[in-house]
Amino acid sequence: MTGKLITFEGLDGSGKTTVMQQVVQDLIPRLGAQLVTTREPGGDQLAEQIRSFIFDHNNALDPRSTALLFAAARRQHLTRRILPALHNNQLILCDRYLDSSLAYQGGGQQLGIENILEMNQFATEGVLPTLTFYLKLPVAVALERIQTRETKQQNQLDQQQRDFYVRVQTAYDKIAANNPQRMVVIDATQPVAVVTQKVLAVISQQFASYFL
Amino acid sequence: MTGKLITFEGLDGSGKTTVMQQVVQDLIPRLGAQLVTTREPGGDQLAEQIRSFIFDHNNALDPRSTALLFAAARRQHLTRRILPALHNNQLILCDRYLDSSLAYQGGGQQLGIENILEMNQFATEGVLPTLTFYLKLPVAVALERIQTRETKQQNQLDQQQRDFYVRVQTAYDKIAANNPQRMVVIDATQPVAVVTQKVLAVISQQFASYFL
Ligand SMILES: Nc1ncnc2c1ncn2[C@@H]1O[C@H](COP(=O)(O)OP(=O)(O)O)[C@@H](O)[C@H]1O
Ligand SMILES: Nc1ncnc2c1ncn2[C@@H]1O[C@H](COP(=O)(O)OP(=O)(O)O)[C@@H](O)[C@H]1O
Ligand SMILES: [Mg+2]
Ligand SMILES: [Mg+2]
Repeated sequence: MTGKLITFEGLDGSGKTTVMQQVVQDLIPRLGAQLVTTREPGGDQLAEQIRSFIFDHNNALDPRSTALLFAAARRQHLTRRILPALHNNQLILCDRYLDSSLAYQGGGQQLGIENILEMNQFATEGVLPTLTFYLKLPVAVALERIQTRETKQQNQLDQQQRDFYVRVQTAYDKIAANNPQRMVVIDATQPVAVVTQKVLAVISQQFASYFL
Repeated sequence: MTGKLITFEGLDGSGKTTVMQQVVQDLIPRLGAQLVTTREPGGDQLAEQIRSFIFDHNNALDPRSTALLFAAARRQHLTRRILPALHNNQLILCDRYLDSSLAYQGGGQQLGIENILEMNQFATEGVLPTLTFYLKLPVAVALERIQTRETKQQNQLDQQQRDFYVRVQTAYDKIAANNPQRMVVIDATQPVAVVTQKVLAVISQQFASYFL
């Protein structure tokens, strides 16, 4: 497997999707078919169906059921999309991956980072990103951005929601501290253009051979 | 948790559903509302939906995705149906449970009994049956019975299918050998009435307090 898996992680509202779009705009002319973009949960037809099932039944699902469904979607995405691209020497940009499960189910839902990691071992068989951008910003700023993006949610952002996001944030910080070799923390309160440039600089430097 | 979980295991065609029906007919007048019957995969509304998803997409799913989906359905069934009944001091008869995953995904699909057990630990948090009836019969007899039951499958029972069932059987035998305290092996080539009587005898003796 010669390709590279690069993931974007961070709280909702941290700018993953926005920044990835900017990064891709810059990379497409330089990489062409060597570039693959995808997202989780989803990224494969059945994985997208599992994603819909999770979101449709979120309140009725036990948190461990949800975590297992995310892992099933990940397995499907990995075997159908990521592994073929890795074998094909491609550079894969993925919006969320394993760390999101660790942070959201492990931290946010309080199932334990270690428990989620161990269970996901079964799904990933150890396939980790080569590089992960953790877009970090204060929880309050993330919540503000989400509220701007989805006005309908405005009422739902109660104290419980805030506590949840603080636990997700804390988990992301722990994961970053424990995986310094692959995780790059970027201050996501900076303007989109600045975040994008930092991401591009790391990618260009770390995967220079793709740009020859 | 004072209730009891009793599971029925064995190859397709071993008679689990048939025998459970007979057993229930005998027990209902004696136990009334103390008796609960259920099945896996399924046994809860969302678990049944996951069951359908698995069976609808069987060929397109990676074996590990399937195993994770079964575990998600099991978690849902456990938390919504089994645990409440256990807390309610009920006697639960369940058509398939964890051992089916160990035998079919672990053995049949060759993912390894230990790997499936460990992953399912996340789903069950250690909830095991108090008693398991393993209806054992030669693979050839099981296949004959399946072919009688579902004529459309006749062509599909090729050598690959036979090898699969042999691996499932071997796994069940291992599980039974490793869990003698909860597993009762019954010769399922005997007439339904005989198998039913043996099951009833064990239940009546082991859970005598329910019949006072
Ligand atoms: N660096 C940034 N500065 C200011 N606003 C941003 C920044 N990045 C993203 N946003 C805005 O925040 C909102 C959430 O961004 P989005 O990319 O959807 O985040 P995510 O995908 O991480 O949930 C959007 O309205 C987006 O325009
Ligand atoms: N002990 C038995 N002897 C002969 N036939 C049986 C016996 N038990 C079940 N059968 C028949 O075998 C077939 C499969 O039984 P079923 O209860 O559906 O098995 P399972 O639920 O284990 O797949 C059915 O046609 C059933 O009537
Ligand atoms: Mg996004
Ligand atoms: Mg049956």
